[in-house]
Amino acid sequence: MANMEMIFLGTSSAAPTSERGLSSIAIMRNGELLLFDAGEGMQRNFIKASLGMNRKMKVFVTHMHADHCVGLLGLLQTMSLQGRERRLDIYGQPRLKEFLLENMRIINFGLTFEVAIHTIEREGTVVEESDYKVSCCEAKHSIPTFSYRLDEFDRPGAFNVEIVKQMGIPEGKLYTSLQKGQDIEYKGTRIKSSEVVGHPRPGRKIGISGDTRPTDKLAKFFSGCDLLVFESTYSQDKYEKALETLHCTATEAATLAKQAGVKKLFLTHFSARYDETSSLVKEASIIHPNVEAAEDMKRIDVPYPSL
Amino acid sequence: MANMEMIFLGTSSAAPTSERGLSSIAIMRNGELLLFDAGEGMQRNFIKASLGMNRKMKVFVTHMHADHCVGLLGLLQTMSLQGRERRLDIYGQPRLKEFLLENMRIINFGLTFEVAIHTIEREGTVVEESDYKVSCCEAKHSIPTFSYRLDEFDRPGAFNVEIVKQMGIPEGKLYTSLQKGQDIEYKGTRIKSSEVVGHPRPGRKIGISGDTRPTDKLAKFFSGCDLLVFESTYSQDKYEKALETLHCTATEAATLAKQAGVKKLFLTHFSARYDETSSLVKEASIIHPNVEAAEDMKRIDVPYPSL
Repeated sequence: MANMEMIFLGTSSAAPTSERGLSSIAIMRNGELLLFDAGEGMQRNFIKASLGMNRKMKVFVTHMHADHCVGLLGLLQTMSLQGRERRLDIYGQPRLKEFLLENMRIINFGLTFEVAIHTIEREGTVVEESDYKVSCCEAKHSIPTFSYRLDEFDRPGAFNVEIVKQMGIPEGKLYTSLQKGQDIEYKGTRIKSSEVVGHPRPGRKIGISGDTRPTDKLAKFFSGCDLLVFESTYSQDKYEKALETLHCTATEAATLAKQAGVKKLFLTHFSARYDETSSLVKEASIIHPNVEAAEDMKRIDVPYPSL
Repeated sequence: MANMEMIFLGTSSAAPTSERGLSSIAIMRNGELLLFDAGEGMQRNFIKASLGMNRKMKVFVTHMHADHCVGLLGLLQTMSLQGRERRLDIYGQPRLKEFLLENMRIINFGLTFEVAIHTIEREGTVVEESDYKVSCCEAKHSIPTFSYRLDEFDRPGAFNVEIVKQMGIPEGKLYTSLQKGQDIEYKGTRIKSSEVVGHPRPGRKIGISGDTRPTDKLAKFFSGCDLLVFESTYSQDKYEKALETLHCTATEAATLAKQAGVKKLFLTHFSARYDETSSLVKEASIIHPNVEAAEDMKRIDVPYPSL
């Protein structure tokens, strides 16, 4: 079983405050780090959280506003100073590639590692590994923006070794077949996989909105997520402001989360006017039963969903 | 008389620590802000220090390492969000212009003000205003780097109005002549300017090293500064490291400050290995009698030199 922890590295919108840095969310999963956005200065909390500069790591950038991507430059610099050797994979809009290549040309980072920049051409799967994938969906903001979703693949059900041993079945190929869901025959007896293997155990599903207005498309995209981190720049009394700047209110974030059937909603990307976010959580909680506000350096253990 | 305050916005070298941000020094003088370097994340302390986003302001960048210039991007972003209207003047290496123009092309900052980028072609005076100038000198680092120096012009000596009134001299042209140092004749009596005007009062002189090895040229450049802010990345027991990375030790900074005859030395740009800088101050204090360590958000009132 893979450990999974989500760490908020920055939770302020647009400009940093004394309590909140610019957008960045880290998901540490089984020793690999998945980073969503890298606002200016995020390396400071990255270092503080001891996430490690030479770790297997992928970065996904939602859009090319300065408060979501500028932090990559300092991160590349510090990783190089610390002698990172592993390749770093970065995914995002075509402009992200231009941004990184131009800055790598102009500033001498003294890179000690390969930076692989992947331009996302269309919605759908961005990365697929053996046990998880990350996919994207177009959000609705003032410039092209992707929302992301991390899906762990379902794991096979638990294999009841005790029962299989009692049946006298020898370890090896027959075990593997049963575990894979195939029925077998042993000494003239047909044994169904379902007799010795439990139900498949679902993987964890996490959604990350980036900056956006709420849309039906996003509600569908985030359908069934265990955790959804959604931008909540304003409270509902600033609805006009949210419309104008193409952001969301806490009420809108909660409405979308409910529509998508997500289990838990984290609000983030708060306007600097909110020193204190309990009013936003209160507003969202009228609509969704499980709402929490993100805070810089808050760490969340992500459990497997219960069966 | 102009007020002058120096505020350290970032005092760490290369990578930020939990206590120190990346290089940036603000000098607030008579309502105008002079900023020397803008390392990533400096806007956070800039905001905290309430320096103001729409102030008359000039930025001087020493060199194009990420930890000295990347913070300009976030600053431009936040100034625009807050609707800055005044022109912002930025001075530095030719690469700084390229860095800013390319990033302004790729990232949509939504600039609300003019950014005037001035490429410094040679050593000498960079900016001259009515009552001060900023000049630069080549430093010795791994890439082209300027050190800067701010010189207030000497103010005329105090004009003794009481004595002049007693002499019966009417206000107007004759006053002006005397104040300018010209002798006058009034009702057949010759009156020397020096009889009614005190000695010229010297302006304040501040030096800022940027990243560099110590050189005789810099010792000459900083000659007679009231305050010198000099990089002190290492202690003397890391001399080899300082040589290799083209930085200074605290001992070297103090030796240069002594050679230049500066009255007070501030050490800054500390390696992340120094949680605590009293050992560096102690080391430097053996050589120079007036040494202090810079700390993030430390504010220094800069007095006029005593006559």
